[in-house]
Amino acid sequence: MKVSVVKNILDANDRIAAENRQLFDQNNLFVLNLMSGPGAGKTTLLEQLGKTLAQEKRIGVIEGDIQSTIDAERVAATGISAVQIETDGACHLDANMIRSSLNDLDLSSLDLLIVENVGNLVCPAEFNIGEDCKVMILSVTEGDDKPLKYPLMFKESRVLLISKVDLLPHLRCDVEKIKNAALSINPGITIFEISSYTGQGLKEWHQWVLKQIKK
Amino acid sequence: MKVSVVKNILDANDRIAAENRQLFDQNNLFVLNLMSGPGAGKTTLLEQLGKTLAQEKRIGVIEGDIQSTIDAERVAATGISAVQIETDGACHLDANMIRSSLNDLDLSSLDLLIVENVGNLVCPAEFNIGEDCKVMILSVTEGDDKPLKYPLMFKESRVLLISKVDLLPHLRCDVEKIKNAALSINPGITIFEISSYTGQGLKEWHQWVLKQIKK
Repeated sequence: MKVSVVKNILDANDRIAAENRQLFDQNNLFVLNLMSGPGAGKTTLLEQLGKTLAQEKRIGVIEGDIQSTIDAERVAATGISAVQIETDGACHLDANMIRSSLNDLDLSSLDLLIVENVGNLVCPAEFNIGEDCKVMILSVTEGDDKPLKYPLMFKESRVLLISKVDLLPHLRCDVEKIKNAALSINPGITIFEISSYTGQGLKEWHQWVLKQIKK
Repeated sequence: MKVSVVKNILDANDRIAAENRQLFDQNNLFVLNLMSGPGAGKTTLLEQLGKTLAQEKRIGVIEGDIQSTIDAERVAATGISAVQIETDGACHLDANMIRSSLNDLDLSSLDLLIVENVGNLVCPAEFNIGEDCKVMILSVTEGDDKPLKYPLMFKESRVLLISKVDLLPHLRCDVEKIKNAALSINPGITIFEISSYTGQGLKEWHQWVLKQIKK
């Protein structure tokens, strides 16, 4: 019984995701679904992206949070058009929440739309929102056993950003172990090692994003 | 419709949690539900607890993970009786999963039972499992904005362990801001600052646990 409820919810979600997809295609818009556990650095990454690319490309961000508008305010300060979804308890964004928030964005005026999902390494990976691809962040502070413990997100993501690598000298964390485990789950995944603090790897990551933009 | 499904699930969960509670009471057992986001240090904390207290007190642990038995093997190595629940995708433990796992533990022989929940700062806080109290960990690497963004877990927890404080010199994180925000959400919450790496705060935390044990 429980399974069929979940299945129906996911089917309904996929239908709405397809409609979102159609809308994104009509606007020739590249849409990225950014996911991670809490505090891996999603918002800081978007701030860096805004500072570097917002003069050159028109970027929109949909911020998903259970509560508060802290993140939308942070990214908007860098020149990004930001919309906040407060999920009021829900642990992930779904296609319907995205559809509702699209009224507040002029898609035709954007080159790139990034959805910052709720900080959660589990549930967001189950819900398509009509995105072109999923990108996940794993902070090295979370430990090198995470791909084996949370495989779905690694499986669903086209890019893995390994963040906060400036902290490695102070941690017991083996980055090669993370990479090998991620590649064993998803051999096609593209991996960048980054630090928003030192700037390491951001140039390569921003170049990857620029290459995906369709306009 | 969705709301009523969720409500029914939570009601059913509470009924089973009450049955678990009865069983724990019959065995005069203190039960602690340990929650955090991924990689905040739950398992390492249990390893430290096992090394320090497993000679003196009989400790059982139920490990919740989406996949893998890594954690149960780690804590079992310290002299704790460990049982692994693989949730197979589910993002939290519920009362029924706990009930099923109790067949593998001799409750009458235990002084303390700790349930290590799935690494997720959102969903586990919604599900009672029949525990005496919830204890949460927030790592300083996750940032000082987390209480305001994930209030439910802070509201539901009797204890907040602020972990990895040895990394503070390398981070932009204000521990006082975390404490003030946590106390504004839950004025009765007890807070310990800890580091499993240096040992800071572990003695105070272990003393708190010992005081709760009923046998």
